Amino acid sequence: MTTLSTQDIWALFAELDGRDVAASEAARARQAILTKPAGSLGRLEDLAVWLCAWQGRHPPRLKDVSCLVFAGNHGVAAQGVSAFPSEVTAQMVANFEAGGAAINQLCGVMGAKLAVLPLELERPTDDFTQGPAMSVEDCNAAFQTGYEAVEGDSDLLLVGEMGIANTTSAATLCALLLGGAPEDWVGRGTGVDDDGLRRKAKAVNAALALHGPVLAGTRDPMETLRRVGGREIAAMAGAILAARNKRVPVIIDGFVSSAAAAVLHSADAGALDHCVVGHVSAEAGHRRLVEALGKAPLLDLGMRLGEASGAALALAVVRAAAVTHTGMASFGEAGVSERS
Amino acid sequence: MTTLSTQDIWALFAELDGRDVAASEAARARQAILTKPAGSLGRLEDLAVWLCAWQGRHPPRLKDVSCLVFAGNHGVAAQGVSAFPSEVTAQMVANFEAGGAAINQLCGVMGAKLAVLPLELERPTDDFTQGPAMSVEDCNAAFQTGYEAVEGDSDLLLVGEMGIANTTSAATLCALLLGGAPEDWVGRGTGVDDDGLRRKAKAVNAALALHGPVLAGTRDPMETLRRVGGREIAAMAGAILAARNKRVPVIIDGFVSSAAAAVLHSADAGALDHCVVGHVSAEAGHRRLVEALGKAPLLDLGMRLGEASGAALALAVVRAAAVTHTGMASFGEAGVSERS
Repeated sequence: MTTLSTQDIWALFAELDGRDVAASEAARARQAILTKPAGSLGRLEDLAVWLCAWQGRHPPRLKDVSCLVFAGNHGVAAQGVSAFPSEVTAQMVANFEAGGAAINQLCGVMGAKLAVLPLELERPTDDFTQGPAMSVEDCNAAFQTGYEAVEGDSDLLLVGEMGIANTTSAATLCALLLGGAPEDWVGRGTGVDDDGLRRKAKAVNAALALHGPVLAGTRDPMETLRRVGGREIAAMAGAILAARNKRVPVIIDGFVSSAAAAVLHSADAGALDHCVVGHVSAEAGHRRLVEALGKAPLLDLGMRLGEASGAALALAVVRAAAVTHTGMASFGEAGVSERS
Repeated sequence: MTTLSTQDIWALFAELDGRDVAASEAARARQAILTKPAGSLGRLEDLAVWLCAWQGRHPPRLKDVSCLVFAGNHGVAAQGVSAFPSEVTAQMVANFEAGGAAINQLCGVMGAKLAVLPLELERPTDDFTQGPAMSVEDCNAAFQTGYEAVEGDSDLLLVGEMGIANTTSAATLCALLLGGAPEDWVGRGTGVDDDGLRRKAKAVNAALALHGPVLAGTRDPMETLRRVGGREIAAMAGAILAARNKRVPVIIDGFVSSAAAAVLHSADAGALDHCVVGHVSAEAGHRRLVEALGKAPLLDLGMRLGEASGAALALAVVRAAAVTHTGMASFGEAGVSERS
């Protein structure tokens, strides 16, 4: 693929594939004859149908599950918005590559193939309290990296991130895309104290004052992403859109991943129909954000690590959905009486 | 073990082992140095500590995970309280043995060894709207079957059940042990219609009128179990108690499993400290029941199948807790900077 222009990116939305109705109906029909009371597997039943609809295949398959973790650095870190220094982003990428992070263990036990994509870590975005975070070219290039990272033969994609200060970027994105006060979207991230939390809110406020008036005229989510997002956030947006066009269902992770998804959702309200949100994180704004996206997260375990960790854990639920759907006997096969 | 008398069973409570403080402190100490912000793995961090405390071992181990599914038949089925006929209990046991049920698929994908223990299915309990469900000997024998089914070298135990009409038995147990109206505890089980739901409430009411006055004087949970429980419920209570005494942590499943656990909880408020509740089921009374037990379920996915299916799915969360705890690098090992 050659370098994408903003116009090229908008054109990708036009390609949005729809659900495969035949595959989802085949899943529903099988659901009804399996040896269990109708509906008794709850959300597992919906997930099996969802997998079929977006894979375009019945029965569903979960042989090749990819986990993409994008990493980026943020100029806004200079505002003292994180409990950790910016060099931790690269250090954690090395930890991912060495197999020592939480996501390595989770991908191992849940059966996902992890790929880590650092995005010019030595070149942080600009501080968006002072001007746009990225040039159009930088933002589009990051989006494209994400788009191209998705392999069309994947059966399922998990999307996550690492980037010191990126909850501040995500909070600003949310405030600009979805409205609300900075306090609605700002949380403790990796664990800032009360002063850090005030610095985060102050940074978001400054960004809203600077970029809000310009963006109010355009209502352009890609321009919002460029102004206050980050490379890993742009890449996640690209990956989620690519997955839709390549018929790969997606599990979104936590607050920052969901903010990336919100960019697509703002562009097209149906753009996330192929996605589930793996968990609601403990980060303050995430519950509000998933509600704005119209999603019901699968898990609620107080996690707030990022790295796709909540998506990887939710993979267990999706695997459970697939194995029960494909492996269970029907009433007829098992000789079990139906309702009296 | 020779046949247990009621006195013998009460003596088993006296043996209740406590948590291993050294193992749980070792887990907490390791938790603090792993490459993640403190607390960012949420409940996974608590689960790793819990595993160590009740296994009496650090690091925790999940090599041998047992899933015990007990099955029983219920005389109260004659009151028209289930959507399915009683013969389904034995048919589903055959389905478990043939590998065709949901729990077979879930144990397979989550890595648990399934054992199914049918308890005299050809001899249902007596209809507890007319008299006690079981003799003392029958109830104790079922409890003992559960107790002896737990292997001391298991690393974790999942407990579940199958038994047409057993949500009516569980609802009656809850009303007698925990108070509240029949309507608080009665739900649709396998999917009864409104008339079926009314018949369930009527059956519970009849049982309360018959057994309530007798039990009010004794406040004896084992006698309550004998009068309105079932063999599979007694066996689950025995298994959960055995696990405590054999240092095996437990994942409780849904409404009927939790009702079995409530028998132990009524006998000793600390008797379930080695247990987590795997999920909150869609069965109406379960949320109230887990609150009464002081438990926060790990999952909430609208499941209501029984068979230990919710516990088996929750095993994924506990596995995630164990692998992150044991497999992650420390800040020092990975060369990652700590908080600035």
